[in-house]
Amino acid sequence: MPSEEIIKGIDPGTRVTGYGIIKLEGNTCIPLDFGCIRAPVALALSDRYAIIFTCLQEIILKFNPSEMAIETPFVHKNVQSALKLGIAMGCALIAAKEKKLKVFGYSPREVKCAIVGTGKASKEQMQQTVSRFLSLKTLPKPQDAADALGVALCHATYPKSVFTNAKKEL
Amino acid sequence: MPSEEIIKGIDPGTRVTGYGIIKLEGNTCIPLDFGCIRAPVALALSDRYAIIFTCLQEIILKFNPSEMAIETPFVHKNVQSALKLGIAMGCALIAAKEKKLKVFGYSPREVKCAIVGTGKASKEQMQQTVSRFLSLKTLPKPQDAADALGVALCHATYPKSVFTNAKKEL
Repeated sequence: MPSEEIIKGIDPGTRVTGYGIIKLEGNTCIPLDFGCIRAPVALALSDRYAIIFTCLQEIILKFNPSEMAIETPFVHKNVQSALKLGIAMGCALIAAKEKKLKVFGYSPREVKCAIVGTGKASKEQMQQTVSRFLSLKTLPKPQDAADALGVALCHATYPKSVFTNAKKEL
Repeated sequence: MPSEEIIKGIDPGTRVTGYGIIKLEGNTCIPLDFGCIRAPVALALSDRYAIIFTCLQEIILKFNPSEMAIETPFVHKNVQSALKLGIAMGCALIAAKEKKLKVFGYSPREVKCAIVGTGKASKEQMQQTVSRFLSLKTLPKPQDAADALGVALCHATYPKSVFTNAKKEL
């Protein structure tokens, strides 16, 4: 990894898609932006996905990251919600690939292990640890934004983690 | 629906994505093209999705359809395959929304009912009926292309079908 690199983290969802942008300078991670995309639920599902795609495109244009890390759950409530989540992941993936970003995937458990040190970490623990890691003055909110920062941090620190030396390209 | 309209049908999949393009002239459906996109399995998953997206973009540019009908399964083997299928659906959806196509979704059962007349129709029955419907000289192959033509035909004939007068916008 070069000495300075910008990573985009994504926690995809149909209702709320969290994003977090960090800059890696040597061993220091600097938060550039974080937040979430909420497509109006009154819109047709296809229009909501199009909004997620457009917003993610704009974020990529603004910060010019070289890599995207996306949370890829291994389990989900049911196949219908997995299908919808998959479509949101597809929107994020295409927004990234259009701009030649490399795309990496990490399960929620991997993110929790890499950030908090345990795969059973609570949402609050994730928020607090991400906040400490990035020297934020307040807890990153909403939770989806904290999770997106978490997956970006997970990616930035992955080779040093307990799992493997290889980053997980999707 | 205007007297002449081009509809793109999609049967999405990670390994094989079928597509079928039909032109609706009055009450006649004319096949313009059909086939499938096979992204090399040796590539990273994200690159395979990017290929599906690019190919679907090219097909839209070539035929300039105004609407896309996509097969949206209600059940799937497991959540992991549903998630992957969802990503492929997301690629198709963004390719369509970028060019302002309206997107409609139909379950496999709805397609079978609309085309063959029974939700329990076999794959061979679908191929044969689609072939007869479009006056093709041979059966449309592979199956994914026949299914894609089927969903396009389902969409074209939907208001006259047994279900409802409303087309199913996604």
